[in-house]
Amino acid sequence: MEGGAESEPTRIMVAVNESSIKGYPHPSISSRSAFEWTLQKIVQSNTAGFKFLFLHVQVPDEDGFDGMDSIYASPGDFQEMKHRDKIRGIHLLEYFVKKCHEIGVPCEAWIKKGDAKEVICHEVKRVRPDILVVGSRGLGPFQRVFVGTVSEFCVKHAECPVITIKRKADDTPQDPVDD
Amino acid sequence: MEGGAESEPTRIMVAVNESSIKGYPHPSISSRSAFEWTLQKIVQSNTAGFKFLFLHVQVPDEDGFDGMDSIYASPGDFQEMKHRDKIRGIHLLEYFVKKCHEIGVPCEAWIKKGDAKEVICHEVKRVRPDILVVGSRGLGPFQRVFVGTVSEFCVKHAECPVITIKRKADDTPQDPVDD
Repeated sequence: MEGGAESEPTRIMVAVNESSIKGYPHPSISSRSAFEWTLQKIVQSNTAGFKFLFLHVQVPDEDGFDGMDSIYASPGDFQEMKHRDKIRGIHLLEYFVKKCHEIGVPCEAWIKKGDAKEVICHEVKRVRPDILVVGSRGLGPFQRVFVGTVSEFCVKHAECPVITIKRKADDTPQDPVDD
Repeated sequence: MEGGAESEPTRIMVAVNESSIKGYPHPSISSRSAFEWTLQKIVQSNTAGFKFLFLHVQVPDEDGFDGMDSIYASPGDFQEMKHRDKIRGIHLLEYFVKKCHEIGVPCEAWIKKGDAKEVICHEVKRVRPDILVVGSRGLGPFQRVFVGTVSEFCVKHAECPVITIKRKADDTPQDPVDD
C-alpha cells in the first residue's frame, strides 16, 4: 500500500463542458462541482498522489450557427468561427488548469471534437486514466432527462472505473435542463 | 484544501456481496477487486483521510432453500437457517474489516436484508457516505447481462457520487455471469 510521491500518481480524467447559461465561456455547474468534489473528497491534501487530465469535447455545430444570427458569407467566416470555438475551449480549460496550479496538483488538458460520449470513451481507451469523473445534472424521473446520457453511456462503456457525480439540488438552476 | 487527519475523513461506502462460486463464504470477484482498486488508487498512503463503511445485503431466500437439499421439519430448522445466514454474512464482512485493520484505515461493517439495490440506496440516505463504491461484472452486450443492474440502479438513484468498478477481463471466471 504505497502512495503519494512513492508510486505513480492516480490519473483522474475529468470530462468538462461549458455551461449552457449565458456569458463568457465558463464551466457547467456539473463540471465545476464534480471537479471540486474530487479535490475535496478524493485528493484532499495528498496532492502528489494524483494527476488530473481534463478533456473538453466540442460538439461540431451541424448547421454552422452557434446561437447568434451570424451570416457566413465566405470560407473565411467559417475559419473565424472555428477559431472562436477553439478560443472558448481554451478559456474553459484554463479555469481548471489554473485551479490545479494553485493547489499544486499536476494536470494536462486538451480539446477534441465530436460526440461527447463517444469521444470520452475513445480517449479513455487511448490515454488509459485510472478513473474517469463525469458530472451529471442528476435530473429526476419527473424532469425531461433522467440522468445525463453522457454519464450513463460512460459508466457502461468506458474501460476504467467511473465516478458519476450528480449536481446538488441547491446548485440546480431555474431550468433544471440548464447546466 | 485541507485533508488527512486535519479534516473529517471521506466516508466510502462499499457494497459487498458473496461470490456465486463454490466454497466457504468469500467475497465476489467484483467486490474484492472494487475494494482493492479503491485502496490502491484512491486511499493510497493517505489512510487517515478515509473511512470505509461495508454494507452487505442478504437477499431473503424466498423458497426457504439455500441450494442444499435440506428438509425443514420444524420452526427451529428455520431459526437454524437464519443463524447460518448471519454467520456467513459476518464471515464475509470479516474479510474486509481485517484488511482495513492491517492497513490502518478505520471502518464499520453491517448486514441488511432485502433487495440489494433498494437497500443500498436506502442505506446511503440513512448513513450519508461521501461516496458509494459498487463493483460490477461489466458484462458486454454479447453476454447475458449488460452491466450489473445493481450498479446501474445505484448510479441513478443513490443520493451521493457513485464509483462503478467493472471486473477486469483477466478476473472473469469461466461463466462470466458467475462472480
